[in-house]
Amino acid sequence: MSAPGAPLFPPAEFAARCARAQAMMAAEGLSALLLTREPEVRYYSGFLTRFWESPTRPWFLVLPATGAPVAVIPAIGASLMGRTWVADIRSWDAPDYGDDGIGLLAATLRELTPAGGRIGVARHLESHLRMPLEGFERLAEALGDRRITGDGAITATLRQVKSPREIARIEAIVAIAGRAFDRLPEIAAEGVPLSTVFRRFQALCLEEGADWVPYLAGAAGPGGYDDVISPATDAPLARGDVLMLDTGAVRDGYFCDFDRNVAVGPPSPAVAAAHARLIEAVAAGLEAARPGARFCDLHAAMEAVVRLGPGSGRLGHGLGMELTEGPSIIPADRTVLVPGMVLTLEPSVRVEGGRLMVHEEDIVIEPGGARFLTRPAGPELQVI
Amino acid sequence: MSAPGAPLFPPAEFAARCARAQAMMAAEGLSALLLTREPEVRYYSGFLTRFWESPTRPWFLVLPATGAPVAVIPAIGASLMGRTWVADIRSWDAPDYGDDGIGLLAATLRELTPAGGRIGVARHLESHLRMPLEGFERLAEALGDRRITGDGAITATLRQVKSPREIARIEAIVAIAGRAFDRLPEIAAEGVPLSTVFRRFQALCLEEGADWVPYLAGAAGPGGYDDVISPATDAPLARGDVLMLDTGAVRDGYFCDFDRNVAVGPPSPAVAAAHARLIEAVAAGLEAARPGARFCDLHAAMEAVVRLGPGSGRLGHGLGMELTEGPSIIPADRTVLVPGMVLTLEPSVRVEGGRLMVHEEDIVIEPGGARFLTRPAGPELQVI
Repeated sequence: MSAPGAPLFPPAEFAARCARAQAMMAAEGLSALLLTREPEVRYYSGFLTRFWESPTRPWFLVLPATGAPVAVIPAIGASLMGRTWVADIRSWDAPDYGDDGIGLLAATLRELTPAGGRIGVARHLESHLRMPLEGFERLAEALGDRRITGDGAITATLRQVKSPREIARIEAIVAIAGRAFDRLPEIAAEGVPLSTVFRRFQALCLEEGADWVPYLAGAAGPGGYDDVISPATDAPLARGDVLMLDTGAVRDGYFCDFDRNVAVGPPSPAVAAAHARLIEAVAAGLEAARPGARFCDLHAAMEAVVRLGPGSGRLGHGLGMELTEGPSIIPADRTVLVPGMVLTLEPSVRVEGGRLMVHEEDIVIEPGGARFLTRPAGPELQVI
Repeated sequence: MSAPGAPLFPPAEFAARCARAQAMMAAEGLSALLLTREPEVRYYSGFLTRFWESPTRPWFLVLPATGAPVAVIPAIGASLMGRTWVADIRSWDAPDYGDDGIGLLAATLRELTPAGGRIGVARHLESHLRMPLEGFERLAEALGDRRITGDGAITATLRQVKSPREIARIEAIVAIAGRAFDRLPEIAAEGVPLSTVFRRFQALCLEEGADWVPYLAGAAGPGGYDDVISPATDAPLARGDVLMLDTGAVRDGYFCDFDRNVAVGPPSPAVAAAHARLIEAVAAGLEAARPGARFCDLHAAMEAVVRLGPGSGRLGHGLGMELTEGPSIIPADRTVLVPGMVLTLEPSVRVEGGRLMVHEEDIVIEPGGARFLTRPAGPELQVI
């Protein structure tokens, strides 16, 4: 029995991540990394809590040029952080309207970095700074001759390649959501409101072992759907609808992200053909997803099947501690695939009448090629 | 039947919010507000989607000095935004590694503000800028003689006071979670792992009508618990444990945030007394929560009962589109209570052996005093 909140990975896993980052920091001339977002903090510390849902408190982790990270966090989290491998934990009673941790953070950074040191923060696409802008500017002032600069995308780059332990966690949540999808006929049928399907599907994910279900999107419509990010309405499923559910469920802090389409009653020939083409596109993506290929190659392989044309959007992305991570499967992304990357293949296709259909599977890159983490859907659309 | 993603409130609700903000902007000398976070964007537009879970894409809403807001968003959201009252929607194919919306946003801001205009962004406590830092700096450059400055906390201040429609939404989700808590004996008993209780409780919330359950925390231990933000372990509930569940469930984009304690088997006299004191503290907080009182007065009223001493932390907070919102019930907060504020009263108390217990209820401020939104727990601890 593990202690409440004890990290799922041994300290060696986190120490190795830090060592890799520190080697890259040395090459970039960085004296420290300042981490402010949930996945960044968790990546180096193992600190796992749903409390990030509250925007009130900032949380800081500092990774110095050598040694273990130092946590500068609200007192409410000190007990939980104390169960990670992080030994140096400095806390304050937040919220503090006079100084909400900035003084403590500045003192910590001054202590851990040399005069003239450069401190890296994430500045790149898909990142943001999770702290008040005013506090960030006060921090920069309080640092004196230390300078805050970009982090060289070090953490984002490291996070692209998952460790075997991380892959096992992603496989676990993929299997859980897969079992929930297997049970879709239990909860979805003609006449059931889409909003009810959404609620019941989340309950199925929980029943099958998800810790929580941060993301569920979907749609239903005759011959396809209009968009894939809308909340569910109370409209009942009707014969002829295609129902799509796309879930990001979480177990132990790792996400799955895949979808399934089902037909309410026999699908039209156009819908059946569209689904078969999506499956064909995924197969083309999987085939292209070999070490040494680039993300743009995966895009080209799938686009050759679905023929969306300009504005095709991204046809997949990285996956792990977040629902979506870089790199993106878009024509402009020339990142080279390496073993350990986990990504989604997510082609969409236009159906007659301006509607669309989307399909998504999760894969891992291995030395000999890509392997499905999901049990992939077949070309024939399931009918409920 | 409402259209998929159609906002829950009529355009007049959003227009009134914008007009109030614009009056405050005039007083602050602001030519526009730039909104980047989910609740900020939704507050003025009604744009509701769980897609914010993906960190890939930034979303921008611009509120000019007069007139309706303008959306500058990724193309994937244009259809959903088109169903809100926002008519002017400008979109780009994101992610774009060359220019991820910054050029479009800068052009929009230049068009909507006069030369020398000041554009407000949230800089204060409990806020952050949800866009890449690099993009923010490029934006500032591209704006030329327009200057980005603080937003005078205009949006945060307006959001403190809920409209009758918002209060009705919060009451709806509070009632849903209340019914789930009523059913706690169905799912929690001696021998059931805490992690299973967590999963089943979320399923109960969904079954009772929650759209999703972004937040669930809790703990169980003999004679109280150590902290309230840890994930659940697989430890089975044992006779003598106090079980606490604290949930932030959502319906139609509005949160509840309250908890319940139950005893597994008869509670010890210390635990029973601690619970009774928590209920007494909530009653004192409710009594103090009259228009004209300050948040610090609520703290003092509850602290007089629970006697935590220095480092008592915050004993409640605002509630609405987010799990926790300002103001905070702390000694330093002198915000004056006005009708329409919705907040939580959340005292904690130390139990023997260094453990603690926490209780939380949701209230609304009305002209004659405060009213419970939750059906408040009684002093006697429920036994399962």
